[in-house]
Amino acid sequence: MPRPVRTEIIQPDGRHVYLYGDFAPAPDGYQAPSMPTGVYQRRWNPLRREWVLVAASRQARTFLPERVDCPLCASRAGHSTEIPASRFDAAVFENRFPAMVPARPAGGSCEVVVYTDEHEGSFATLSASRLARLAEVWSDRYRELAARRGVRYVFIFENRGEQVGVTLHHPHGQIYAYPFVPPVVATELRRRSAGCLLCRLIEDERKGRRRVLIDEGGIVAYVPGYARWAYEVHVTTKSHRPALTALTPSNREALLTAMQRIARAYDRLFDVTMPYMMAMHQAPAGGLAPGQAHLHVEFYPILRDRGKLKYLAGSESGAGVFINDTLAEESADRLRAALE
Amino acid sequence: MPRPVRTEIIQPDGRHVYLYGDFAPAPDGYQAPSMPTGVYQRRWNPLRREWVLVAASRQARTFLPERVDCPLCASRAGHSTEIPASRFDAAVFENRFPAMVPARPAGGSCEVVVYTDEHEGSFATLSASRLARLAEVWSDRYRELAARRGVRYVFIFENRGEQVGVTLHHPHGQIYAYPFVPPVVATELRRRSAGCLLCRLIEDERKGRRRVLIDEGGIVAYVPGYARWAYEVHVTTKSHRPALTALTPSNREALLTAMQRIARAYDRLFDVTMPYMMAMHQAPAGGLAPGQAHLHVEFYPILRDRGKLKYLAGSESGAGVFINDTLAEESADRLRAALE
Repeated sequence: MPRPVRTEIIQPDGRHVYLYGDFAPAPDGYQAPSMPTGVYQRRWNPLRREWVLVAASRQARTFLPERVDCPLCASRAGHSTEIPASRFDAAVFENRFPAMVPARPAGGSCEVVVYTDEHEGSFATLSASRLARLAEVWSDRYRELAARRGVRYVFIFENRGEQVGVTLHHPHGQIYAYPFVPPVVATELRRRSAGCLLCRLIEDERKGRRRVLIDEGGIVAYVPGYARWAYEVHVTTKSHRPALTALTPSNREALLTAMQRIARAYDRLFDVTMPYMMAMHQAPAGGLAPGQAHLHVEFYPILRDRGKLKYLAGSESGAGVFINDTLAEESADRLRAALE
Repeated sequence: MPRPVRTEIIQPDGRHVYLYGDFAPAPDGYQAPSMPTGVYQRRWNPLRREWVLVAASRQARTFLPERVDCPLCASRAGHSTEIPASRFDAAVFENRFPAMVPARPAGGSCEVVVYTDEHEGSFATLSASRLARLAEVWSDRYRELAARRGVRYVFIFENRGEQVGVTLHHPHGQIYAYPFVPPVVATELRRRSAGCLLCRLIEDERKGRRRVLIDEGGIVAYVPGYARWAYEVHVTTKSHRPALTALTPSNREALLTAMQRIARAYDRLFDVTMPYMMAMHQAPAGGLAPGQAHLHVEFYPILRDRGKLKYLAGSESGAGVFINDTLAEESADRLRAALE
């Protein structure tokens, strides 16, 4: 795969910034923000059998700043942001308030992906050229982080909306490079039988058609029959592909275009900006499980109806049993009606 | 174990109500509310390897009614509630908007436990006699539901506070009787070695003392070293006890008293009513795993600081990796200072 054009900058505190595509230099007098000291640990939870990340400096992180103080906008005279450029296409930087740091023996890293230098808008409103750029950025970050020593899993995701806990409005997502395979992914890959489970699930959804929202250009989007969230949607490749890097540039664009159509349908569903999480599941680092790992994107919108949030309460948090108030088939009908 | 005094009433729609202790009959003209029809299913999520409960009538459930319309208060002339009594000590009824119904082949049931007929207050403010009554109610419900055909796990829990999604303020908790062992519990009980894991964890916490909040009367409360929530606390019995029914009445009272001290410390911590989930883990039905199952209560308070909620976002929901902003040892110090 040809690598995209990118410029790498190292900030005074050692954090990396990657500017993808075109950019204009930082204004005179640019002063990079610096990372506060903190405590970073991971602790094994023997009851849940999972790692917990402890990051005890994040309490002070930036919380919904005014627009003029946005740390993800381009820098300008008198306002230095996380981005050492006065104009840019897309940028990635190491989070100043990370959940993990790349310490020994095996730490992780937390990157912020800034989709555009335009403060307004969202993933749903990115132009086609920004979307194509983002496809290359995600792909490049996956490739690079997965090759990094100690990294076991690269997790591309987006939190969107204050009700999901987002503290910055500027269109952006995140990437965590974990030093272990996270439990949700490990469960997906723990197969009882040979072959790819997702290939089979996709085939079932495509045969049934009842819950399919998009099926074109090699990309399929559907409300899974076993959805946990009222309007959960999975977007994936029809053919078995372990990761973004296994797609052609036009496949990647088709994937992101389908994801964007889903995000737009969400915003139309209740005529409000839908708060959601987007989680991209790909193959673990080190070429593990390529036959089982099938690239797919899971959207979890947290509204279950107009003005009604889904809460993760006792049954979900204490027992691990989700309760869904809607039938996946009816959700699919409503989302289909909202698709462009 | 001697059974507590209780009166069983069957409502016209077939739902059971259990009045524990003393009560006064319903006022003349009492009209029981009736359960709406709905769709109840469980679906297997093959990616997460867990059951999802689908309950498609709950969307209409009562949402934060005015005090005079509270459905958990005693009934009075002109106001019929879920409780067919004009005064009561404690009551349990089958939820009118359940997540599961006891249908064939193996359904479940959802009960609401009303701690008192006093509308104001909370678990934290229950009198000693109400607390002792509640201990007997929980124990009786566990015993009865665990013996019911098709029930595999009895889950006693409480959601508290609007930010956890609570729709009724009257002091109450819930009990779900699942037709399967829920994944969180199954993971706890999936031991690699012989003996009880919790016995070992409790011993470690008691030796270290650093995170222990209460250690008296056979009850231990601590912030586990591997806490996922900033102020997570586990309350348990020092000796190995699989379930409430294996405790003496005075052990049970000691457990609930310790739980109440924790709930009170939460309310003092930030001088606000702390929203939390309380999850009680006990042995599965049918006498499974009595050597591994060790009764314990997990409190998950959802504030991580004054006015700051912990959100379950991309890393937690999409990967299963919790990020805790605080050190368990420091949380324990702060909670200890708030203990009475």
